[in-house]
Amino acid sequence: MPTYWTRTLIPTLRELPSEAEVPSHQLMLRAGYIRKLGSGVYDYLPLGWRSLRKIMEIIRQEMAAAGAVEVSLPALIPLDLYQKTGRDQAYGDNLFRLKDRHGRLQALGPTHEEVVTEMVGGYIDSYKQLPLTLYQIQTKFRDEYRPRFGVLRSREFLMKDAYSFHTRVDGPGGLGETYQAQFDAYCRIFRRCGLDYVTVEAESGPIGGSASHEFMVPSPTGEDTILESDRQNYAANVEKCEIGRRTQNLQGPVRGDLEKVATPNFPTIETVAQFLKTEPRRVLKTLVYEASLEPALKVKAEHALEAAAEPSPRAFVSERFFVLAVVRGDHDVNEAKLTSVIRGINPRIQTVTLMEQHDALRHGFTIGYVGPHAVAGEAITRLVVDFDAAQDADWVAGANEVDHHVRHFNWQREVLGRGGEPVVADIRNALEGDPSPRDDGGVLKARKGIEVGHVFKLGTKYSTALEVTAQDDKGERHPMIMGCYGIGVNRILAAVIERAAAGQEGHDANGMILPSAIAPYPVVITTIRHQGAAKDLADKLAAELEQIPGVDVLIDDRDERPGVKFKDADLIGIPLRITLGDKSLAKGEVEMKPRRAAKADLVPVGEAVKRAAELLKQL
Amino acid sequence: MPTYWTRTLIPTLRELPSEAEVPSHQLMLRAGYIRKLGSGVYDYLPLGWRSLRKIMEIIRQEMAAAGAVEVSLPALIPLDLYQKTGRDQAYGDNLFRLKDRHGRLQALGPTHEEVVTEMVGGYIDSYKQLPLTLYQIQTKFRDEYRPRFGVLRSREFLMKDAYSFHTRVDGPGGLGETYQAQFDAYCRIFRRCGLDYVTVEAESGPIGGSASHEFMVPSPTGEDTILESDRQNYAANVEKCEIGRRTQNLQGPVRGDLEKVATPNFPTIETVAQFLKTEPRRVLKTLVYEASLEPALKVKAEHALEAAAEPSPRAFVSERFFVLAVVRGDHDVNEAKLTSVIRGINPRIQTVTLMEQHDALRHGFTIGYVGPHAVAGEAITRLVVDFDAAQDADWVAGANEVDHHVRHFNWQREVLGRGGEPVVADIRNALEGDPSPRDDGGVLKARKGIEVGHVFKLGTKYSTALEVTAQDDKGERHPMIMGCYGIGVNRILAAVIERAAAGQEGHDANGMILPSAIAPYPVVITTIRHQGAAKDLADKLAAELEQIPGVDVLIDDRDERPGVKFKDADLIGIPLRITLGDKSLAKGEVEMKPRRAAKADLVPVGEAVKRAAELLKQL
Repeated sequence: MPTYWTRTLIPTLRELPSEAEVPSHQLMLRAGYIRKLGSGVYDYLPLGWRSLRKIMEIIRQEMAAAGAVEVSLPALIPLDLYQKTGRDQAYGDNLFRLKDRHGRLQALGPTHEEVVTEMVGGYIDSYKQLPLTLYQIQTKFRDEYRPRFGVLRSREFLMKDAYSFHTRVDGPGGLGETYQAQFDAYCRIFRRCGLDYVTVEAESGPIGGSASHEFMVPSPTGEDTILESDRQNYAANVEKCEIGRRTQNLQGPVRGDLEKVATPNFPTIETVAQFLKTEPRRVLKTLVYEASLEPALKVKAEHALEAAAEPSPRAFVSERFFVLAVVRGDHDVNEAKLTSVIRGINPRIQTVTLMEQHDALRHGFTIGYVGPHAVAGEAITRLVVDFDAAQDADWVAGANEVDHHVRHFNWQREVLGRGGEPVVADIRNALEGDPSPRDDGGVLKARKGIEVGHVFKLGTKYSTALEVTAQDDKGERHPMIMGCYGIGVNRILAAVIERAAAGQEGHDANGMILPSAIAPYPVVITTIRHQGAAKDLADKLAAELEQIPGVDVLIDDRDERPGVKFKDADLIGIPLRITLGDKSLAKGEVEMKPRRAAKADLVPVGEAVKRAAELLKQL
Repeated sequence: MPTYWTRTLIPTLRELPSEAEVPSHQLMLRAGYIRKLGSGVYDYLPLGWRSLRKIMEIIRQEMAAAGAVEVSLPALIPLDLYQKTGRDQAYGDNLFRLKDRHGRLQALGPTHEEVVTEMVGGYIDSYKQLPLTLYQIQTKFRDEYRPRFGVLRSREFLMKDAYSFHTRVDGPGGLGETYQAQFDAYCRIFRRCGLDYVTVEAESGPIGGSASHEFMVPSPTGEDTILESDRQNYAANVEKCEIGRRTQNLQGPVRGDLEKVATPNFPTIETVAQFLKTEPRRVLKTLVYEASLEPALKVKAEHALEAAAEPSPRAFVSERFFVLAVVRGDHDVNEAKLTSVIRGINPRIQTVTLMEQHDALRHGFTIGYVGPHAVAGEAITRLVVDFDAAQDADWVAGANEVDHHVRHFNWQREVLGRGGEPVVADIRNALEGDPSPRDDGGVLKARKGIEVGHVFKLGTKYSTALEVTAQDDKGERHPMIMGCYGIGVNRILAAVIERAAAGQEGHDANGMILPSAIAPYPVVITTIRHQGAAKDLADKLAAELEQIPGVDVLIDDRDERPGVKFKDADLIGIPLRITLGDKSLAKGEVEMKPRRAAKADLVPVGEAVKRAAELLKQL
């Protein structure tokens, strides 16, 4: 049954919506795919929803082929379930919380590891019932601090989330096997949706686990940075990307007396460097972090602190653990790397968080003016220095005094000589031009990407916390081994519009360009005047075209000028337009124009369906 | 592709779950369709979710056939949208509210009239773009005070909600036309799902609007009461059901002196009647209500009240409006009828709410012991008396004094004679045996039902509140005229299990009995031993059966005793079981047993698929 334009809701807009920064957001608003209801919350209009439904159908087919079974879990989840795994803290303010009418705390699910683990634990007891992979396509909620880019970073969105359960990692039925099956299914899903993608090693973040890969769609508007070796044997998200071998040199000679300089009104490394007539790469950037212990211990420490009426600076440090992270002024600290270094020192550490200015000041750290020598010789604060900062050089650094820096900072004199023991490690974000971590002479290249999928080898994080065990084939009981696998459904649609591979661009100046697999309609039949023979032929062609699997037809039956109709068809990204005009019909012909083609072809009416079918295979 | 029992999750339980009261709840838990996550919140396991998906597909087909277009609206809705229509108050504590990280109030949508009206108002301007019917199948949230009966009354559930927009009520494109189209679609949907249903006139409740019909599935476990005339020309929900002509008689003679009797420790009408050696039908039940004005005015009244430090009884009554509702002791006040009577007196009244004891006492109403003569002659409180209570009789009534009642209450002496002006009206729930409101000699019969659908002629309630207008064909601008149409998706599944029509029962002692249209699998192939020829034949038959449209097959490949497999197949309600046993296979036969049949038939292997196809048409 074709859809008539006048009987659905396709509110196209001429103007560029002012609040939209990226093409997918602009075009989804202009093409009447979505409407903003609240911050990061969107209505899906008929066209947008049709596209999402097609994407979901592709996902369902590939999940079934990969042996995953569909379920549906609630959005409204007792908060204590997240407290048991510590994820209420890991998600922090990103977790929507509410009290029900009886005062019970609830969360709106950001992902469902806890819910599915508790459920499987209620039923599964033995390796004989495993492996099991469950998935759902369900609405997720995250209270993003700053929702943006339309459906790319929203607060309510559709996710396909799958969870697998095992009693072994390797071999038949193991985590590795399902991880690969999901990985392969993701490749098929993204390809069918028309996406070129890169798979990269990634950080696991609040989800946790031992290893993870992201599926990235390269696009200049992506929020993520992908780094790839030019030898094409390594790719990673910037949060994860390691850097090849570098050396340290803290023993270099002194180049001058340590000289304190007043630097008021220079709020950034760049302005300080400019004032001191040097470059940011000659300035040490020193950030103050607090390492948090396991949640229970952390709470204890906080209570101890609250109990003290007047905490004196650095008094309670036996309960708290500070970290000075030093990188070159032109580099950025990578918190995942820093956390991993700190965990190497103390495995009880859970997270590493930048300290708030007020709290840091109370402990003697003059935020904005901290230098690595602030704590030389002090046991309770660890000094962690990136390789590129741990070099013989004539450094500018913070003076540990408000509005002051020092010149001629020297590691040997200022830190080592005073009993400081810095840990030198890779703690910065990788950059284009860095050596590949494969140490094979490869050099990293950077590009931007949109994350559309993420697969995790979770291990036993959730099953341990929730005490969900199964007997293995030796009769021993262990926490189940898990994997989890996510796809951002709405993001696929946005990524298709943002995709930028040559010849596969997802949009042009006229609007979206969608592949027929996920376009709301693969075909629009545009009648120049919707009456008489054109009207009848539109219905006839539509009925025949809809016999082709996967093809549904939109008939533009509006009483509008042809120019308006053509512009709208382009804007909403329909892959193939068939135009029925009086003149060409008089010659027994219709016009046929793929969305990317510069001009329309004339095709005899009798061959129209066959020709459309051929074209659609490539669109 | 068939599903193998060992590769999905079908956790059947032998024991009856203690928390489940009704068969659908018990069986959905026992058959592994659902799992409880929190109060009124359920996980849908693979079987339960498959059934829901089939129900949703039927709904989608019939919505499309009725000309409705699918959209998807968010669950997270700015609360101010509900404030604009007063529905935040109308829903009260049933509305989930939360604050986001920036402190903005949000609601979780219980229905989407506001969202869809705002959206359509953003795009539609003229009658030329109408009518338009949008629908979604989406998760709804209601913070029920007491969730119960499993998915029949839960806090998170799937609803199909449709909304139509018009510039006229009658004629082509009018509300009436779409209302009928939706009504007809509902009939087809419920029939395809295997449900016998009754359509009844209903109250519109917090949704609002001028007229509405409910679709009820008769079932002894239903929460709703359906009243039908034995002349079969009237059916209504008890909340709506009018009662045929009755007369009043307040002028009857006095039968004795008004006598005050101490009645401590008799908390109910029944116990008071027993103590006074009479019957509840001889006792007047007097309830104290407060009528609320429009929200804005109500707020003013509350502020006035808060501002007073020591409100004396009945001091602020000029701002408040009380109602004494009097019915016979064996009858129940119908609040919808009472509201409608009160609105007849003052159209600004929005709702009528039972007063809290504490508040009532402050205003001089001794709850539990109020008699109609409490306010005789008082202007600020209205006395509304049901016909059956407005009769010449020797009544027992409250004495307007704690722990006391009166005997020989007489309307003429106690109320009329003291200047009281009761309004006599139909304000009680109808009962079996009452005269039909058609006043044709018909008598009402009662039965229980489960509400599965509700259609509303909304009118302009939402478009007026949100200022959403369209130009009509005369160039005049009016608020759009709306209808809305809801189906409880999860309830359909429960109602199918609860249905009780003779020969169509939804369950028996062995488990569910589902129609093939919505069973998770129409066919289960049970191998007695899953190996060799039986295993191969199971795959072959499954592949052939799945060529039949709508048929998917579950293969019970478990290493379990045949009795366990048969019991489980019955429990989960699969319409047709095909059993492959060594003995019958040796004779070239399979066993075929419809779920309701007492015993299996033997069918030659070569005819199995054809025979199954025939059987499935009737199942």
